Amino acid sequence: MDRKAVAEHLRALGIECLTEGLEPYGRDETMDLFAAPELVVRPRSTPEVQEVLRLAERDGIPVTPRGGGTGKAGGCIPVRGGIVLSLERMNRIREIDASNRFAVVEPGVVLWTLHEECRKHGLLYPVDMSSGGSCELGGNLACDGGGERAVKYGTTRAQVAGVEAVLMGGEVIRTGGKLRKNAAGYALHHLIVGSEGTLAVITEATLRLVPLPPFRKTLLAAFASLDRAAHAALEVEAKGFPLSAIELVERAAADLAQRMLGVVLPHPGAGAYLLAEVEGFQGGRTEEEIEAVGSALLESGAEEVDVAPREKVWAVRHAIAEAIKKLPGYSAVDTVVPRTRMPELIRRAHAAAKANGIEVVCFGHAGDGNIHVDFIRREASDPRWDPGIGPAVRAVLEATVALGGSVTAEHGVGLLRRDDLPLQLDPATLAAMAALKRAWDPKGLLNPGKIWPQG
Amino acid sequence: MDRKAVAEHLRALGIECLTEGLEPYGRDETMDLFAAPELVVRPRSTPEVQEVLRLAERDGIPVTPRGGGTGKAGGCIPVRGGIVLSLERMNRIREIDASNRFAVVEPGVVLWTLHEECRKHGLLYPVDMSSGGSCELGGNLACDGGGERAVKYGTTRAQVAGVEAVLMGGEVIRTGGKLRKNAAGYALHHLIVGSEGTLAVITEATLRLVPLPPFRKTLLAAFASLDRAAHAALEVEAKGFPLSAIELVERAAADLAQRMLGVVLPHPGAGAYLLAEVEGFQGGRTEEEIEAVGSALLESGAEEVDVAPREKVWAVRHAIAEAIKKLPGYSAVDTVVPRTRMPELIRRAHAAAKANGIEVVCFGHAGDGNIHVDFIRREASDPRWDPGIGPAVRAVLEATVALGGSVTAEHGVGLLRRDDLPLQLDPATLAAMAALKRAWDPKGLLNPGKIWPQG
Repeated sequence: MDRKAVAEHLRALGIECLTEGLEPYGRDETMDLFAAPELVVRPRSTPEVQEVLRLAERDGIPVTPRGGGTGKAGGCIPVRGGIVLSLERMNRIREIDASNRFAVVEPGVVLWTLHEECRKHGLLYPVDMSSGGSCELGGNLACDGGGERAVKYGTTRAQVAGVEAVLMGGEVIRTGGKLRKNAAGYALHHLIVGSEGTLAVITEATLRLVPLPPFRKTLLAAFASLDRAAHAALEVEAKGFPLSAIELVERAAADLAQRMLGVVLPHPGAGAYLLAEVEGFQGGRTEEEIEAVGSALLESGAEEVDVAPREKVWAVRHAIAEAIKKLPGYSAVDTVVPRTRMPELIRRAHAAAKANGIEVVCFGHAGDGNIHVDFIRREASDPRWDPGIGPAVRAVLEATVALGGSVTAEHGVGLLRRDDLPLQLDPATLAAMAALKRAWDPKGLLNPGKIWPQG
Repeated sequence: MDRKAVAEHLRALGIECLTEGLEPYGRDETMDLFAAPELVVRPRSTPEVQEVLRLAERDGIPVTPRGGGTGKAGGCIPVRGGIVLSLERMNRIREIDASNRFAVVEPGVVLWTLHEECRKHGLLYPVDMSSGGSCELGGNLACDGGGERAVKYGTTRAQVAGVEAVLMGGEVIRTGGKLRKNAAGYALHHLIVGSEGTLAVITEATLRLVPLPPFRKTLLAAFASLDRAAHAALEVEAKGFPLSAIELVERAAADLAQRMLGVVLPHPGAGAYLLAEVEGFQGGRTEEEIEAVGSALLESGAEEVDVAPREKVWAVRHAIAEAIKKLPGYSAVDTVVPRTRMPELIRRAHAAAKANGIEVVCFGHAGDGNIHVDFIRREASDPRWDPGIGPAVRAVLEATVALGGSVTAEHGVGLLRRDDLPLQLDPATLAAMAALKRAWDPKGLLNPGKIWPQG
């Protein structure tokens, strides 16, 4: 790419291009992944995105779309150079249609900004996750972000009723709308959700909202062991309580977050916590329900159950990823298995760590069977890390697939899992995906190097 | 196609071929649509489907997949001849995984058969619709069937966690599984759902189940006018009641169904009914909720509200389509608009009927903004039908799109709406869909003649 000529061309069209201070645009939150960007382009509108993709197609320039950069699979690393297309300035909430309960947003809106805006209307955008203060909706859609409330409301996909997106070459497509049903042709928005920016650049999304339940109650349950906590999560969920979250946190993960925040949760001797939440429209009923959940957790072997101060408990839960990122080394495996196989997956993760002489912490969305298996390196000098981490990660991925699971639940494939994907998907299925990619981006310019194993 | 040679080839492989009595395979439930099948093939297994699609690709034979034949858009009419691929004998429920709450089914399973099987496990497959006694799950997936419970649980799409499908040429693809989150590559199952058999033949689906609520309460509310009932549906839904259904039935639609069944609903003078349903796990609470819904309906202008005998009320609701089918003529428009625009759409539908001297009845899923606008011809001799029906349908479709809606909510595009699709989707979007079609079926053999406008 002739960086200077490209920047001049785009600037002449009024499109912002950065040629300095690009280093932050070369990484996300995946350990050790970095590629130096050549040029960062920050469009403000759909026509500007069209211009970028028109030029890129004409001149054969790779384009790597980028949201908040909070990914954990390297999905936005510009490994083939070219243009980093940051959507951060397309950050308007175009509309909150409170009567029909839909939001129309640009891709650069930060998740918790949408939450705040919805709250003013007595509405809830039901997806939430630890990175909510900085992740952007475009990235959530690209990876089908799930988070902690998916157990009740589904993942990002379940909220998406329509998108506007730009294809490589600059054509704009639009499907869906403020509709609760729609059978008009292929659901292109459902293909684009989860395609990690390899098929199209989302420039607008229409998202489903729900009435905001004014009452929320959170329980913190302490268990003697991680295994006991995992089983209890299954048992409580199976009883059909209307949980809006049920999160599992292993002791060591909680400790890392508590230390960073300088707070202390009750029951420091516990092997693991479950964090259960119920929400509702009637205070008394919500109270009854959380009490029933508490009783069920005690029946399932909890040592202690406390109605917890919501903010503090969630702050600890949300800080885990950040605390792990501060360590000298980490490697996150985003496992999901059929729920009942979760205790077995956790057991195998710990066995894999032990066999390779490294440490692991498990935490995540127990109600979905979605456990984050994070291997951590506490000391940079630990000699067991380098030889151990590869085999340990591989063992967890193999166990996940053997238990009927997926090598990525909500982080996406990106760079990190592209060579692992064939563990899970057979060649015909991968080829069918690649055929769709070629149909829309025959030159392979849009977010190149992602998802598919490299030849 | 050399019908004899094809049948011989397939029979030699043990695959059932019908060469007589094919007439029922040439139609669905769309008025006046028919094409004579050349050959009907009824495979029993995925490998048999592979053989059919391998041969078809090799010899350039069109293949029209077929479910229960209850479609209302001609999606399974073999307009280009060739093979009708009926999935009716692939009708096994392969597994009910009660612990993880998933069903693994073949495409030929009849919807209510799955309901029955789930009930034995205390579970619910949450999609229901009037044609449930004969429609097949493969067809539900192909059209993303919605029905009356989508207001609470979403459409078929929301239940689909994975599929196995065969591509033209015989390759098998598999995505998803018994998973509540999954970000491993493109969500091919979400592309295939709603693609009306034009992209792949579904041979297995993994479907989400939910705990079966043991208590259900149904209300029948009578209104002086259709307009009043439509507004009341919006008002009650906006109050956030956890409705599992809220259906609108215009007087004349109810009358047709009652006459066919020989039953009478209360309040024969009403202009329209709303049928509201609440379900739950606690009898007392469900009772309270339905009473609150009843009060809200009275506040919103209901003349009378009765706790109704569930079976009778639903029997009438479900019989409407069947009763209309017995008339000398009908034409169904499956509209969906942003919910708040529903009363306006209904008003315009009646205006379109009046302007063209024909009769219309409106009924459907008020909570989703999904109203079936059915034009009916009571007398075969009515001279106003032939000149009036085209302009009337066109007016309703144009009104739907003008109000931000879709020309098909849950029936699919099929043959019936293929020339109307450009009202709603721009050329770039249609071209993007067509590019995906070519990527998987370059010869255009799979369910040809559907979805796209004809040149």
